[in-house]
Amino acid sequence: MIIDVHGHFTTAPPKLNAWRARQVALMEDHRPSPPVDELDITDDEIRASLEPAQLRLQRERGTDVALFSPTAGGMGHHIGVAETSRVWSEVVNDLIFRVCTLFPENFVGVCQLPQTPGVSPANCVDELERCVNELGFVGCNLNPDPTGGFWRDPPITDPYWYPIYEKLVELDVPAMLHVSGSANRNFHLTGSHYINADTAVFMQLILSDLFKTFPGLRLVIPHGGGAVPYHWGRYRGLAQDLGRPTLEEGLLHNVFFDTCVYGQSGMELLTRVVPLENVIFASEMIGAVRTIDPESGAYFDDTKRYLDAIPELSVADRQLIFEDNALRVYPRLGAALERQRGSH
Amino acid sequence: MIIDVHGHFTTAPPKLNAWRARQVALMEDHRPSPPVDELDITDDEIRASLEPAQLRLQRERGTDVALFSPTAGGMGHHIGVAETSRVWSEVVNDLIFRVCTLFPENFVGVCQLPQTPGVSPANCVDELERCVNELGFVGCNLNPDPTGGFWRDPPITDPYWYPIYEKLVELDVPAMLHVSGSANRNFHLTGSHYINADTAVFMQLILSDLFKTFPGLRLVIPHGGGAVPYHWGRYRGLAQDLGRPTLEEGLLHNVFFDTCVYGQSGMELLTRVVPLENVIFASEMIGAVRTIDPESGAYFDDTKRYLDAIPELSVADRQLIFEDNALRVYPRLGAALERQRGSH
Repeated sequence: MIIDVHGHFTTAPPKLNAWRARQVALMEDHRPSPPVDELDITDDEIRASLEPAQLRLQRERGTDVALFSPTAGGMGHHIGVAETSRVWSEVVNDLIFRVCTLFPENFVGVCQLPQTPGVSPANCVDELERCVNELGFVGCNLNPDPTGGFWRDPPITDPYWYPIYEKLVELDVPAMLHVSGSANRNFHLTGSHYINADTAVFMQLILSDLFKTFPGLRLVIPHGGGAVPYHWGRYRGLAQDLGRPTLEEGLLHNVFFDTCVYGQSGMELLTRVVPLENVIFASEMIGAVRTIDPESGAYFDDTKRYLDAIPELSVADRQLIFEDNALRVYPRLGAALERQRGSH
Repeated sequence: MIIDVHGHFTTAPPKLNAWRARQVALMEDHRPSPPVDELDITDDEIRASLEPAQLRLQRERGTDVALFSPTAGGMGHHIGVAETSRVWSEVVNDLIFRVCTLFPENFVGVCQLPQTPGVSPANCVDELERCVNELGFVGCNLNPDPTGGFWRDPPITDPYWYPIYEKLVELDVPAMLHVSGSANRNFHLTGSHYINADTAVFMQLILSDLFKTFPGLRLVIPHGGGAVPYHWGRYRGLAQDLGRPTLEEGLLHNVFFDTCVYGQSGMELLTRVVPLENVIFASEMIGAVRTIDPESGAYFDDTKRYLDAIPELSVADRQLIFEDNALRVYPRLGAALERQRGSH
């Protein structure tokens, strides 16, 4: 089985963004969110948004199932107040639940959290519980910079964040550390804000004893770990110079990298420097780069293709990357797949 | 000849930082900088700070000359006002000049600029001219985030920055885009602020026609280009999706990456994906990582060693990386070397 742990509903019916636009306009007017039942997306509209897109590409690329979450760039935690974020998160998580109900063999849910700058992540606990316990989701996206590119909240290793970690450990679900929109004109969304966040959180973790406090916490760093694998020697060296544990001892029981790296050389680097127990297949399809590479004739984000072309990876290595690591890091995934596929 | 284009005077005599500490304390009291002649560093103190450090390592590693600038983390553009930055930049640039005068075979000067958040880079033109025309420096470090990790000034592609680009082109010297200290606790200095800045500026350049306006402008991105070479496919794909020129057409006549990558796999990636005309030897020695890698038994930042161990690099390739690219990108370097070595 080939599990893609990083997919977003970037192709959601336009009604979704229209509802969000109304919500933001009302919020700017200090008025409450529009009624949720104004969002009358039909099952057929959901099917039509996925069939020629993620579902077609799953078939073409030979991947089986995607962990599916609301569009990361659309989480927009920096917009509005806590109530804005709460309502919006419920709306998009419910939509993901409908996707997983309509296509139980193809998608398993991962939720957005109702984060807000300066508001304790304790505020996210209820929605996380609802998504895991009631909707059957297997993980969440946790935004390390709810301020949208200005990085004014505390680092993810600060006790500020502990309430959400306690709940993650209790529910035994991991978080993917994934930022949302950039309101800072210095940072392009997918070209630098995403990648820089991945790099920043890894360095925060090097400096911290977070996993001594939360040995059961598991964090997935997307986009191939940002700059980290390329600068693996820098991070190994910094850990040593700063008197921190080695990366293996200090971080790699708890930190995992996805394979959203859109080139052969990058993928080879990732699988060469990072222990394969820490590499989890993902494509972010349909996401940051949507076109075909004229040099290879294949989609840039067809990350399976790059992995298939690495001869050093044994059958056992591929089993780890494509399936076993995902099932281990997302312990609720096995049961979710059985349940969803059994119900079909 | 082996030219290292990225070295900082990180081992400067402690009197330098003591003077700076006095300057900052006075500034916080709204008082002017201490007299520059209070900084009584002797030639012997300069020699003693370099001999067991950069000079020894140059000999041990077999590199010939380093482009040498004030400590990047110490530029501290976010501290104080324009006058603070002007005086401090003159102090440290003058110290670099003394280094180059004492060791004309080993060091060629690169200057710090007196940047200040919200103050036009036009304010840096005089110091750049002084360093190039009077002190014989061959380049400068330009900080793309004078706000110290908060990224509140405009992107480097904004006309805000044009006055300094005009002067760089007129003087025919390149800028290395190098941030300084991080006042943002989310960003570790050398572990994420540096690397993230490198990534951010590359993406800013993809989105802009800056080099149509300044075809003669040359920018060096340090630390192996941040995350860029690892995610080369992402950047190629983003350029295509956004309707921008290819990286080769749009950027690579003007943008160069140094080789400050502290591992064999990373260096192989860099030299495989980036055209070798755009790769310039550097080590950042003595800088971010100062110890020996227990796995290899060699210094993490002995970047020449990684290059030496890449068999695919021909003699001509190595000539480009170690010498020719530096002489081409820093056109005043050849004459500076002749002049300095002739004077010896």
